[in-house]
Amino acid sequence: MDVYTLGEAFGVVTSGRIRHEHEARLDVTGAELAVAVGLARLGHEVSWLGKVGEDELGVRILSALRGEGVDVSDARVAGGLPTGMILKEARTGQAARLTYYPTAVRLAQGNVPVDRVTQARFLHVSGVTAALNARDAMNAAVRAARTAGVAVSVAVDYDERLWPDLKEAEEILGALARAADVLFVRQCELDLVKPALNGDREVIVNRGTRGASVRVNGVRYDASGVTAPVVDPTGSRPAFVAGYLSALLESLHPADRLRRGALLAAFAASGPSDWQSLPTRDELPLLETDG
Amino acid sequence: MDVYTLGEAFGVVTSGRIRHEHEARLDVTGAELAVAVGLARLGHEVSWLGKVGEDELGVRILSALRGEGVDVSDARVAGGLPTGMILKEARTGQAARLTYYPTAVRLAQGNVPVDRVTQARFLHVSGVTAALNARDAMNAAVRAARTAGVAVSVAVDYDERLWPDLKEAEEILGALARAADVLFVRQCELDLVKPALNGDREVIVNRGTRGASVRVNGVRYDASGVTAPVVDPTGSRPAFVAGYLSALLESLHPADRLRRGALLAAFAASGPSDWQSLPTRDELPLLETDG
Amino acid sequence: MDVYTLGEAFGVVTSGRIRHEHEARLDVTGAELAVAVGLARLGHEVSWLGKVGEDELGVRILSALRGEGVDVSDARVAGGLPTGMILKEARTGQAARLTYYPTAVRLAQGNVPVDRVTQARFLHVSGVTAALNARDAMNAAVRAARTAGVAVSVAVDYDERLWPDLKEAEEILGALARAADVLFVRQCELDLVKPALNGDREVIVNRGTRGASVRVNGVRYDASGVTAPVVDPTGSRPAFVAGYLSALLESLHPADRLRRGALLAAFAASGPSDWQSLPTRDELPLLETDG
Amino acid sequence: MDVYTLGEAFGVVTSGRIRHEHEARLDVTGAELAVAVGLARLGHEVSWLGKVGEDELGVRILSALRGEGVDVSDARVAGGLPTGMILKEARTGQAARLTYYPTAVRLAQGNVPVDRVTQARFLHVSGVTAALNARDAMNAAVRAARTAGVAVSVAVDYDERLWPDLKEAEEILGALARAADVLFVRQCELDLVKPALNGDREVIVNRGTRGASVRVNGVRYDASGVTAPVVDPTGSRPAFVAGYLSALLESLHPADRLRRGALLAAFAASGPSDWQSLPTRDELPLLETDG
Amino acid sequence: MDVYTLGEAFGVVTSGRIRHEHEARLDVTGAELAVAVGLARLGHEVSWLGKVGEDELGVRILSALRGEGVDVSDARVAGGLPTGMILKEARTGQAARLTYYPTAVRLAQGNVPVDRVTQARFLHVSGVTAALNARDAMNAAVRAARTAGVAVSVAVDYDERLWPDLKEAEEILGALARAADVLFVRQCELDLVKPALNGDREVIVNRGTRGASVRVNGVRYDASGVTAPVVDPTGSRPAFVAGYLSALLESLHPADRLRRGALLAAFAASGPSDWQSLPTRDELPLLETDG
Amino acid sequence: MDVYTLGEAFGVVTSGRIRHEHEARLDVTGAELAVAVGLARLGHEVSWLGKVGEDELGVRILSALRGEGVDVSDARVAGGLPTGMILKEARTGQAARLTYYPTAVRLAQGNVPVDRVTQARFLHVSGVTAALNARDAMNAAVRAARTAGVAVSVAVDYDERLWPDLKEAEEILGALARAADVLFVRQCELDLVKPALNGDREVIVNRGTRGASVRVNGVRYDASGVTAPVVDPTGSRPAFVAGYLSALLESLHPADRLRRGALLAAFAASGPSDWQSLPTRDELPLLETDG
Repeated sequence: MDVYTLGEAFGVVTSGRIRHEHEARLDVTGAELAVAVGLARLGHEVSWLGKVGEDELGVRILSALRGEGVDVSDARVAGGLPTGMILKEARTGQAARLTYYPTAVRLAQGNVPVDRVTQARFLHVSGVTAALNARDAMNAAVRAARTAGVAVSVAVDYDERLWPDLKEAEEILGALARAADVLFVRQCELDLVKPALNGDREVIVNRGTRGASVRVNGVRYDASGVTAPVVDPTGSRPAFVAGYLSALLESLHPADRLRRGALLAAFAASGPSDWQSLPTRDELPLLETDG
Repeated sequence: MDVYTLGEAFGVVTSGRIRHEHEARLDVTGAELAVAVGLARLGHEVSWLGKVGEDELGVRILSALRGEGVDVSDARVAGGLPTGMILKEARTGQAARLTYYPTAVRLAQGNVPVDRVTQARFLHVSGVTAALNARDAMNAAVRAARTAGVAVSVAVDYDERLWPDLKEAEEILGALARAADVLFVRQCELDLVKPALNGDREVIVNRGTRGASVRVNGVRYDASGVTAPVVDPTGSRPAFVAGYLSALLESLHPADRLRRGALLAAFAASGPSDWQSLPTRDELPLLETDG
Repeated sequence: MDVYTLGEAFGVVTSGRIRHEHEARLDVTGAELAVAVGLARLGHEVSWLGKVGEDELGVRILSALRGEGVDVSDARVAGGLPTGMILKEARTGQAARLTYYPTAVRLAQGNVPVDRVTQARFLHVSGVTAALNARDAMNAAVRAARTAGVAVSVAVDYDERLWPDLKEAEEILGALARAADVLFVRQCELDLVKPALNGDREVIVNRGTRGASVRVNGVRYDASGVTAPVVDPTGSRPAFVAGYLSALLESLHPADRLRRGALLAAFAASGPSDWQSLPTRDELPLLETDG
Repeated sequence: MDVYTLGEAFGVVTSGRIRHEHEARLDVTGAELAVAVGLARLGHEVSWLGKVGEDELGVRILSALRGEGVDVSDARVAGGLPTGMILKEARTGQAARLTYYPTAVRLAQGNVPVDRVTQARFLHVSGVTAALNARDAMNAAVRAARTAGVAVSVAVDYDERLWPDLKEAEEILGALARAADVLFVRQCELDLVKPALNGDREVIVNRGTRGASVRVNGVRYDASGVTAPVVDPTGSRPAFVAGYLSALLESLHPADRLRRGALLAAFAASGPSDWQSLPTRDELPLLETDG
Repeated sequence: MDVYTLGEAFGVVTSGRIRHEHEARLDVTGAELAVAVGLARLGHEVSWLGKVGEDELGVRILSALRGEGVDVSDARVAGGLPTGMILKEARTGQAARLTYYPTAVRLAQGNVPVDRVTQARFLHVSGVTAALNARDAMNAAVRAARTAGVAVSVAVDYDERLWPDLKEAEEILGALARAADVLFVRQCELDLVKPALNGDREVIVNRGTRGASVRVNGVRYDASGVTAPVVDPTGSRPAFVAGYLSALLESLHPADRLRRGALLAAFAASGPSDWQSLPTRDELPLLETDG
Repeated sequence: MDVYTLGEAFGVVTSGRIRHEHEARLDVTGAELAVAVGLARLGHEVSWLGKVGEDELGVRILSALRGEGVDVSDARVAGGLPTGMILKEARTGQAARLTYYPTAVRLAQGNVPVDRVTQARFLHVSGVTAALNARDAMNAAVRAARTAGVAVSVAVDYDERLWPDLKEAEEILGALARAADVLFVRQCELDLVKPALNGDREVIVNRGTRGASVRVNGVRYDASGVTAPVVDPTGSRPAFVAGYLSALLESLHPADRLRRGALLAAFAASGPSDWQSLPTRDELPLLETDG
C-alpha cells in the first residue's frame, strides 16, 4: 500500500446566497477523502479509514471512495447515528463560508488497525482531524506509523472555527507537526507550528495560486501556481497534498513535486466538487498545457 | 392579535435519493412557522416567537415571516450560534425521511414575553416543540395563556425519532394535551394522549387525505379530504391546523372548520415547500372547485 | 394550401408560485400558432399570418413556425415595437393564472393578403383574436373567405379578462360564430353564441377530458376524452381544433374527427408547452394505445 | 458468490421531446447492471462481467458497480474504444423511445472466466445480451454453468429493434430459454419461447403493473403489481428479476418471490434511473406499506 | 428615519439568448428598491414608497422589502391592475438588453405622504422614475423635502429608451438635478445635466469599474473601482448609491464614501440579482480584502 | 444564392465531468451548419446540403436551419436510420473532449444537385466532412463548383481522431486545399497542406484568440482576436469562417474580413452552443464595443 490516511467525511450542501437561494448542490467532502481520491486517480494504492453514519450520506461516502478504487475495508459505520453535514455558502468572487453540523459519530482509538497502518509507505493526516472527533484515533495511527518507520505526512489545516482556544491549537498542532516527516503548511500557519519548521523534515509552504516552496535537505525549491479558471477554491489544499505525495512516491525532483501539487490544486478549484474534479493520470496535460 | 405561536424553525435541504443526487432544494421550515404563514395569508394577525442562529438561515427565517406580515418582533437571535438544519430525502411515492441537525440554539423560558401572549385570542403550540430545545419556553407560554384565559391550541405532532423514551412522550405530551382547549391529533396518536380525549375540549382527529373529524360539545362532525396532486405531504399537518384555526377565528361551523383545514392541507402538499404553497384568501377557490 | 390561419403570438414565461419561484420557463405561445403547428406536424399545408415585434421574441415565433414547415411568408414585423408577453403561474393541480402584457403591435386590415386567404380550403380564426389587436384584420379575412367559398373554422375561445363588456363579447363573438362553417365551442360558451347553434353548421362542443360531441347534418356524435398524464392543460383547446380539422381535411367520420381532436388535446396537455408537445403522424399511436 | 451475471452496459442520455429540449440527464444503464445492483443492495454477493470502453463512461459504469459492492474484478476495458450510448426520449405519459449507439466494444468468449462462473449459485443472463455483441461470451457462460450445475436464470427481454430477423430471434432466444432453470418472460414473448414453457423449469410471466405469475412444480402462483407513482417504467423488468432472484436465494415462498419482484419493479419505476432507485433491505417497507 | 425613497418596481425575467433559451430566472427589481435594500442591510432606517399591481408580483415586491426590514407602510396596491414586467436578455460578456412591459399602475401625487417624507434625513429619487408613471409623485416628494430642509439625493439614471425626446429629458432631468443636494451622474450624462454641475452640491461621477470621483466643497476626491467577478452589472449603479449614502449618513470621509459605493457596486454585480447580492455590514470585508 | 455548403450534422450532448455529472445539455451541431447559420443571420442567402436520420434529432437539425432561414430543400432524410451523436465533456478551463457516435447515414455523391451548387457565389466545405461519410459527395460538389467557376472555400479542420492514417489525411486534405480559392487553416495544420500555401489563393491562418492573418495578392494582413468571456471555444472556428466569408461577400477590406471573423468567433465562444450564440447584424456592435 502506498498511502494510509484517516479522517472525517461529511455531506456538504453548497448554495449561493443562503438567504435567497432555492437551488443547492449535494455532495460529500472531506480533506483526507480528497487526498485519497487524488492519489487513487493517479494510480497509487490508498486506504481510507473513517467512520460514517448509518444513513444514505454514509453510504455515499463509502460508495464514492470504493468506486474510485480506494480501499475502505477498515472504514466503520456508526450504528443509528447520522453522518455530519456542512452547509457551504459559495458566493461568486468571495471566499466560501462553511457551517459545520457535526454529529456524535466518533472514530475511536480502537478503530485503528495498527497492522494495516504499518504496511503503508506513508501515513497522511490533517489538522482538521485533530480538531474534531477523531483526535485519539489519529494520534494512535501516528504513533504506530512512527514506531514502524512509516513516513508521516501532516497537513496543518488550521481552521479557527474548530479551535476556540488558540493555545490548545498551538499545542496539539505543534506536536502533530513535529511528528511529521513531510509537513504541509500555509504562510499564515507558520507561527503556529514554528518549532516544527526546524529539523530535517520536508516542509512545504503552500501559497495557493501564488505558488509554493519546499525545503529539502536544506535546499529551497519554488514553483509558481497553475493559472486556470476557478469555480470553488475550497478543495485545492487537499488536492495539492495528493499531487505532492504522488510525485514524492515516484521520487520525482522536489520542483516537480511542487508542480504536480499545484496542478492538482488547479484541477480541484476548476469545478464545484473538491474531489470530483481531480484528474486521472492521462488528464494531467489538460491543465499543464494551459499553465 | 389573533394567534400567538412559538416554536423552532430550521433550514431544510430536500433532495431525491441522497446516495446519488447532486441537486437539492434549500428552504426554511417549521411547524409553527407554517401555521403562522397560513393564518397570515388568510388575513389573521399572528405573532411568531422563536430563536434563530446568527447566520443567513436565521435571517431567511425571519425575512420569510416578516415578508408575509407575521409579527416577529419577539423573535430572538442566538449570538454566535448557527441555525439548525434538516436533511430531507423525498423519493417519489414514498414518505420523506428526515434527519435533524439541531444546534445549541435554545429558546429559554425567559424569552417568552408573557404580556404579549396574553393579548392573543389563541396560543398555538406543537408537540415537536415539546420534544426539542424550547420545552420550558413552551410550558411558560401555555401557563400564561391559561392564566389569562387565552385559548390554547395544541398539535400533538409526535415524532418517534425525537422521543427516545415513549414513557416520557406520554407524560409530556399528555400534560400538554390536557392543557389544550383545541387539540389536533392523528389516529396513531390517540393512545398517547388518551386521558385528554375526554372532557369538553375540541378534539380534531386528522386522517390526512382520508378526511378528518371533530367533536364539539359532544357532537361529532366529519369531512373528507381534498383530492389534489401531491408533491410533498410533509407540511400538510401544520397547514390543516392553520386552516382549522382560521375558520374557528371566524366562528364558522365545525364542518367548515374541517373543510378549510383539509383545503389548506391540500395546498401545502401540492408544492415542494410546506409554507410557500399556502393560499391567500382569494386563492382558496382554486382547489375548492377541484374538490 | 389546406388551412390559412391568423392571430396573435406572444412570449410566455411560466413559473410556479410567482411570489417565491426563481425558476421560470421561456417559450412562445398563441392559439393559432398551436393550431398551425398541430396541422403541419400531421402533414397538412398551413399558412400563419400575424405580426410580431422587432425583437428576439418575434424572431423566435417566426423561427418556430418556419422550423415546423408552416408558411410564414405573409407574417409581418412591427418595426421598433416589442412582442407582447404572457406571465403564467402554473401551480400544481390548479388551473394556470395568466397575465397579459400586450404591446402596440397590431395586425391591420391592410396586412391581410386576400388572394392568399382565398387559396386555402379552410380559414381558421379564434375569438381571442377578436378580443385583441387584430379584430379588423380577422374580420377582413373572414369576409374574404366567405366571399370566395373558403370554409371558415371558428373557435369561440371566450376569455373574460379580455372582454370587460359582456354585451360586446356576445355581439362580436356571436357574429363571428354565425360566419362559421365549423364552430368550436365550450359548454360554458353555449349561451354566448346561442343564435349560431342552429342552422346547418358543424358545431363541436368540447368538454375537455370529459369528452366532446358534434352535430353533423342533424346527427349527433360523441367521443370520450383521452386519459393521459397532464402537465399543463392550457394548450389543449387549440390542439383539439388542430386534430379535428386534420381529420376533417381527410374526410374522416365525425366520430374519428372528435377522437383525433381529443388525442391531440391529450398530447398538448402532456408537456409544458402548448405546441411543442404536439405529435407527428407516426407518434399518434403513442397515446392512442393508452386510451 | 450468490449470482454471476454478464452483459453490456451503456451511457444513457434521457430527455423530454428531443426536437425541443435543451436539458438532459446523463446516467449509465444496462439490464444486468440493474440486476446486479438490485441484488447487492439486498445484501447478496454478485459479480458482474462486461466490457466497457476506455473512457469516462466506462469508468462511470465500473465505479457505480464497485461503489455498490458488486464484484467487477472480471470486467474488461476495451483499449482505445468508446463505451456505447443510448439516447432515450421520455415524454410524459408515453412509453420511452430508445436509440442505440453501439460501438465496437465486444465481450469475447475468451473473456469469460469459467472457474468464476462455476462458483456462483446462479448465473443470470438476458436476451438483450444475446442480441448484441456479447452473444458468444454469454453462451460460453451458460454452457459452463450448466456443466457445473449452477442454476441458470434467463430474462427473455426481446427487443424488436435489436432482432431484424424474427426467425433468428426465435431460434436464439428459444435455445437460451431452454437452457434456463428460471425463466422470466413477458406475456407478449410467450409465443417466441413456446417450446421452453413446458418442462419443470420455473417460468415467471411478468405483466408489469398488472401483476405476475409463476409455475413451480406444476402449481401456479399469482401476485398483483405494486401501485406507486411512475416516473420512468423502463427499468422495471430487471428490477423485477433482482427482486425475484433475491427471494429465491432466500428460499421464500413462490408468492413472496413474485411480491418482492413486483416491489423492486415499483421502486425502479419510481425514479428517473433504472438502478439508482433500487431499494436497500431496510427501505423495502417504504413501498410495501403503500401497496 | 434615515432615508425615504420612492420609485417603481417590476417583475423581471432574465434569460440567455431569448431566441433559444427555455430557462429563465424570475425576480423583482427596481432602482430605488435596490437602494432601499442596500441601506437596510447596512443597518439604516429606510422607507420605500411605490405602487404595485394587485397580483403575486406585487406581493413579492412588498414581501422582499418588508422581509429586509424596509418600511413599506406607505406603499400602495393598484386594485385590479397587474405589476409591470421587464424582460432581460443577459448574454455572457455582453451588456444586458431590457424590454419594458409597463402597466397602468401609476403612483399619483396624492399618494405621497408629505409628513413622512419630511421626517427623513434624506430623500432619494432617480431619473428613471421621472421618465415613468410616477413623475408627479416624485416631484411632489422633492418639493416637500426641499421645503422641509430634508437633503435630496438624485441619481440621473438616463435611459434613452425611456426618453424618446432628448430635449424633454434635458429639461426634466436638469430640473431634477438642480434640486439635488447630492447628485449621482455618469460620465455620459454630464452634458445632460451640465447646469447642475456648478454650485455647491455634492456631485459624484460614477465610472463603474473604472472608479468614481466626487467634488465636496470644491475639493475633488477619487477612488478606483473594486475588482471582483461580474455576473450581471445591471444593478451596480443603485448599489453604488446605497453604499455612498450609507457612508454619508455615517459622516465618513468623501474618499470612504466613494469606496463604500464602489464596494456595494461590486457586490451587486457579483450575482444574478441586483438587490439579493447586496451585503450586510459584516459581509463588507468579503470583497474589501480582495480589492 | 450567396453560399452553398454541405456537410454532416449531429446531435450533441454536453456535460461536465462525465464520470459524475447527471446534468447534460442537448443540442445539434455541425461545422457547416454553424457556417450556414452564421451567414444567414448576417443576411446572406445560404443553402445547406446534408443527410440526417429519420428521427427527432434529424427533425431538430432541419428545423433549426429552416427556422434561421437557411435553405434546406436539398437536404435528405435517411429512411430508418438514426442521426449520429457526439458526446462532449466540457470541463471548466480545459479543452472539451469529444466522442463521435456516427451512424450509417451517408450523404452519397448522387445526393449532390450539381445545378444548385453552380448557382452559388461560393461553395464552402470542411476537412471534417472529407474524413467522414460524405467525402464523395463533397468531392462531387467541389468539382462541380470549380467547373462552373463558383469560388471554393475550404476549412482544413484536421481532427486526428478522424484520421487514423496521417498519410491519408495529407493526401486528401492536401488535394482539397489545392482546390480552394479561399483556404482557412490553423497554425498546426500548415505542414499538412503545405503545397497549397503557395499560389494565389487567399490563405487565412486562424490563431484563435491570438488573432489571425491572411495573404491576399501577396500582401499579408493581420488582426488581433476579440477578447470576450469564453464559455465553450469549440465552435469558434466555423464562426470565424462565417464572419470572414460574410465580409468577403460584401467585398470588405481584408483586415475587416479578419475582424468580422474574429468577432463571430468570439460570439460563438461566448455561449454553450456553437450556432445559437451567433449574432444578427444589429448585434455585431455588442462585442465590437468591448474589443
